[in-house]
Amino acid sequence: MAVSSTKRIISCAITGSIHVPSQSPYLPITPDQIAQNALDAANAGAAIVHIHARNPETGQPSPDLELYREIVGKIRAKNKEVIICLTTGGGAGMSVEQRVAVVPEFKPELASMNAGSINWGLFPVLDKVKEFKFPWESAMLNMTKSFVFENTFTAMETMTRIMTENGTKPELEVYDMGHLYSIAYLLQKGIIKPPITMQFVTGILGGISSTPYDIMNMHTTAERLFGTGKYNWSVIGAGKAEFPAATMALILGGHVRVGMEDNLYLGKGVLAKNNGELVTKMVRIMTELDLQPATPAEARELLALSK
Amino acid sequence: MAVSSTKRIISCAITGSIHVPSQSPYLPITPDQIAQNALDAANAGAAIVHIHARNPETGQPSPDLELYREIVGKIRAKNKEVIICLTTGGGAGMSVEQRVAVVPEFKPELASMNAGSINWGLFPVLDKVKEFKFPWESAMLNMTKSFVFENTFTAMETMTRIMTENGTKPELEVYDMGHLYSIAYLLQKGIIKPPITMQFVTGILGGISSTPYDIMNMHTTAERLFGTGKYNWSVIGAGKAEFPAATMALILGGHVRVGMEDNLYLGKGVLAKNNGELVTKMVRIMTELDLQPATPAEARELLALSK
Amino acid sequence: MAVSSTKRIISCAITGSIHVPSQSPYLPITPDQIAQNALDAANAGAAIVHIHARNPETGQPSPDLELYREIVGKIRAKNKEVIICLTTGGGAGMSVEQRVAVVPEFKPELASMNAGSINWGLFPVLDKVKEFKFPWESAMLNMTKSFVFENTFTAMETMTRIMTENGTKPELEVYDMGHLYSIAYLLQKGIIKPPITMQFVTGILGGISSTPYDIMNMHTTAERLFGTGKYNWSVIGAGKAEFPAATMALILGGHVRVGMEDNLYLGKGVLAKNNGELVTKMVRIMTELDLQPATPAEARELLALSK
Amino acid sequence: MAVSSTKRIISCAITGSIHVPSQSPYLPITPDQIAQNALDAANAGAAIVHIHARNPETGQPSPDLELYREIVGKIRAKNKEVIICLTTGGGAGMSVEQRVAVVPEFKPELASMNAGSINWGLFPVLDKVKEFKFPWESAMLNMTKSFVFENTFTAMETMTRIMTENGTKPELEVYDMGHLYSIAYLLQKGIIKPPITMQFVTGILGGISSTPYDIMNMHTTAERLFGTGKYNWSVIGAGKAEFPAATMALILGGHVRVGMEDNLYLGKGVLAKNNGELVTKMVRIMTELDLQPATPAEARELLALSK
Repeated sequence: MAVSSTKRIISCAITGSIHVPSQSPYLPITPDQIAQNALDAANAGAAIVHIHARNPETGQPSPDLELYREIVGKIRAKNKEVIICLTTGGGAGMSVEQRVAVVPEFKPELASMNAGSINWGLFPVLDKVKEFKFPWESAMLNMTKSFVFENTFTAMETMTRIMTENGTKPELEVYDMGHLYSIAYLLQKGIIKPPITMQFVTGILGGISSTPYDIMNMHTTAERLFGTGKYNWSVIGAGKAEFPAATMALILGGHVRVGMEDNLYLGKGVLAKNNGELVTKMVRIMTELDLQPATPAEARELLALSK
Repeated sequence: MAVSSTKRIISCAITGSIHVPSQSPYLPITPDQIAQNALDAANAGAAIVHIHARNPETGQPSPDLELYREIVGKIRAKNKEVIICLTTGGGAGMSVEQRVAVVPEFKPELASMNAGSINWGLFPVLDKVKEFKFPWESAMLNMTKSFVFENTFTAMETMTRIMTENGTKPELEVYDMGHLYSIAYLLQKGIIKPPITMQFVTGILGGISSTPYDIMNMHTTAERLFGTGKYNWSVIGAGKAEFPAATMALILGGHVRVGMEDNLYLGKGVLAKNNGELVTKMVRIMTELDLQPATPAEARELLALSK
Repeated sequence: MAVSSTKRIISCAITGSIHVPSQSPYLPITPDQIAQNALDAANAGAAIVHIHARNPETGQPSPDLELYREIVGKIRAKNKEVIICLTTGGGAGMSVEQRVAVVPEFKPELASMNAGSINWGLFPVLDKVKEFKFPWESAMLNMTKSFVFENTFTAMETMTRIMTENGTKPELEVYDMGHLYSIAYLLQKGIIKPPITMQFVTGILGGISSTPYDIMNMHTTAERLFGTGKYNWSVIGAGKAEFPAATMALILGGHVRVGMEDNLYLGKGVLAKNNGELVTKMVRIMTELDLQPATPAEARELLALSK
Repeated sequence: MAVSSTKRIISCAITGSIHVPSQSPYLPITPDQIAQNALDAANAGAAIVHIHARNPETGQPSPDLELYREIVGKIRAKNKEVIICLTTGGGAGMSVEQRVAVVPEFKPELASMNAGSINWGLFPVLDKVKEFKFPWESAMLNMTKSFVFENTFTAMETMTRIMTENGTKPELEVYDMGHLYSIAYLLQKGIIKPPITMQFVTGILGGISSTPYDIMNMHTTAERLFGTGKYNWSVIGAGKAEFPAATMALILGGHVRVGMEDNLYLGKGVLAKNNGELVTKMVRIMTELDLQPATPAEARELLALSK
């Protein structure tokens, strides 16, 4: 039975690798914090939790598989239902194989797959943070002046192959209009298979912005390229654009992502204390628009997940 | 006195670094051929000629400054007026300093400056060419599966500084929507100075496409970010999109680029024998729309060139 | 001091002339009901109340000036602040002078002025209502199959003149894209004066629809014609589109109108019992988006009202 | 066998009822002139000729069926192939039955059917013409200040029924966005039958304008409402917008209309001496874009005409 079109998937990205601990004392860092935030997000209405790991001492993003194992284990110990989506975004200097290593290791239902390369300009944050707790923070932010987030066609082909072998569905991260055309090319060549699911990641300096115009443009381009109703899409608005951008997505028929990876604030000047609060706010907005959060089971059906 | 809004700048990109000699026997390769094509383009109505050099034996793109010197010299020997725009696009493995070396060396009025990073997917051409004349051709095309065209924020800042020191105006090459926002950021920070001039480079796999929808979206985004009439813009449509995309630009008030860098055909199945033919066709379309090609002097005024 | 851009005007249209009493037992009909609903709307956060009168016995829309006098009096007896906007929409068979008669009579700060003619197709409601309480209801709905809502250029000129003479600002009702161009023409000819304030009335069969695409198109057209920040605009979405359409307007920087003239429901299957409930819901959505309802004083400043 | 997508229908509207003889000495007025212009247009590449009659003495638009009979006879005497499309636009004061009378009388393959009501503001022409030859001209232009071009839902239903009875296909004239939604409603109710064919009539004051933005908006709205490839559409740009608007249509995949009904000029300041010249110019633009004019036989197939 088809899931009602009034059900929309909330994905919650718990901690990511963009924000630095000095931006919010509530940013989850340890496996315990990340797992607890994921559980809280799921309880609040998120069908998907998107997971990155961080070094529990310094908060620095980490590819350490043992940290991922601990986080996933702690989530699954208390919640068998929520969909876990693992990142393959990696960090500077990591090979494609290192970035995708979580897939063969954990065989998640869903993993991010970045659909193109962009400049990845986090350095404007340097103007906003007065004092840094850890030396890696400003170093990382500064480094992004010269950083390209590389996701070549070869990398996409390799990642897709590994995901397919492990029963993992790629969540295609779309940072700009050209990435939609790259996905259309890969679909046409049979390298990625329908039905596709995409996240429009907006507001990273170097990629497309989070204005309603950009979201409209991405949406109408996707409609034209993939056909109404033949794909899934969701929107991420970085920073204070999180809720307006997500609300635009809802009005246009899309799904949404919230969470501290993308935005640390519940409202102007009010830090979110927990990812669950961000999900709860998203649910309130949905309710005002006569929409309901999809359950994990409904999300599995909507996204055609294999498990 | 203001240049009439019915005057539009035609830029002609003579040979570029994308097409391979096996795609057309008319692709200019030697300094003589490149210079002669540039002169023909200027005579046909181009106000700007955009110059790349190639190895005269193999047709492989080359950063050799002596080749550039020869080409520029041969153009200037016969035409003092046409605006010469030199590329800083470079090739795989070249440093920013190597790519921008033509600027201090020749102090051109105009030089390209790429406004962001994208996957640079030329490999679909492999399906179209039956036989390659030179080994480097298929190797280069294959390489682009794993290639990112890197233009970081640091690189943009460096290039802008060097261009400013040499009286060269950057022609900002915009390959996707995010690049417009990057330019807006650089303008806001004072790193690049108004009035800006942009080329919307459409149709490279990895960047935005050449459909009329994409051109409309880029145009309306630029209007919103920079303000009507406060910047110059031009459109490049790769391949068979060259003339429809340029015509869209004309209708929307923009300037145009044609030339064998972007497109080898005059019409379906008909190879252009000379860049001048492509310019002549562009002039005919302009005429039908009650527009006229800007002279080099008019283009200098429109673009606020310093010389 | 400029009003903050996070302040948005809520207008509440209390009863209108479109809905028929058989559609909701809560539709205000008597002067008491209409005035009480207006007061409740104002208390809930509406800065403007938009007023139509109805025959207190039958609920039929009425041009009777004594009814208007009674309604306005009852509102003003308890609320000196809220902005009262009177309709000049009129009904079939009424002359322009009859429609605008409320203006010289009451000299309201604001009165609606329709910016063009459209087919006014209310007859689809016939399929939704099972039983009609009053004979005029189905007769009126049926009549609209052959009805044109006439607002000629002469009528607009006459109405504007009368409003100007009485210190009343026209709220321009825009039912389709062509009306925006008509307004631009009247502005250029000096017949209407800046700064203008517009309502985009969407969802009447015969006029533009209420989809987010339509609202985006009207918004971007208005930006192009009138210049960012140089005019005021608000959106009405008829029926179930009320809250999504208003939310789109908020995200795009506009003001909003709600109320039982446009929509009878708080959510799927839940009739609003009072216009105040609709305003309260609108305020909740604003709050989620970090926006606040403008007070009447702030609205007067934003709209440049003369009183 | 499907007609190639590079074939586009040129419709030529020979004389219409908008322009007045004082605007051009070449405006065809007598049956001989109108028929000869239609034949010239067909020879130049028009697959459809759109016919209005005028009083041969004064040039005033006329509903006289004998004039239509004479025009149609003179065209058919020399050209059996061209598709004849008769107007049902009528004039002020005419009933629906009078307007549609040409349909039962001549059973044309195609007849215009206006898809909604708008203000019909021709009066700006008064500022352009210095001297009028005939008194009716300025009277008619002035009258349009108070004129609504009425095409109610009842009228559309009546016209469709009469056309269906006579084997005539309606060419739906769309003057604003709301008319697209009205057509969608009539389709959904089965009152008009697919496949539909539409003319986007742009540039009448009161309706949508002829800017590329408007044409893009109408096109994308039609795509959304009717589905890519499931309907036919063509663009008319009034006045100097004729060729840019038609060129936009070509680039977007549409058909085009030219002719002295819509535009009297070949280029800035150059009056067309004959409708054939306007068609010839349109064919030249098509050729530059690798497109070809559809023959009448191809147009019949594309439009699914019954004869």
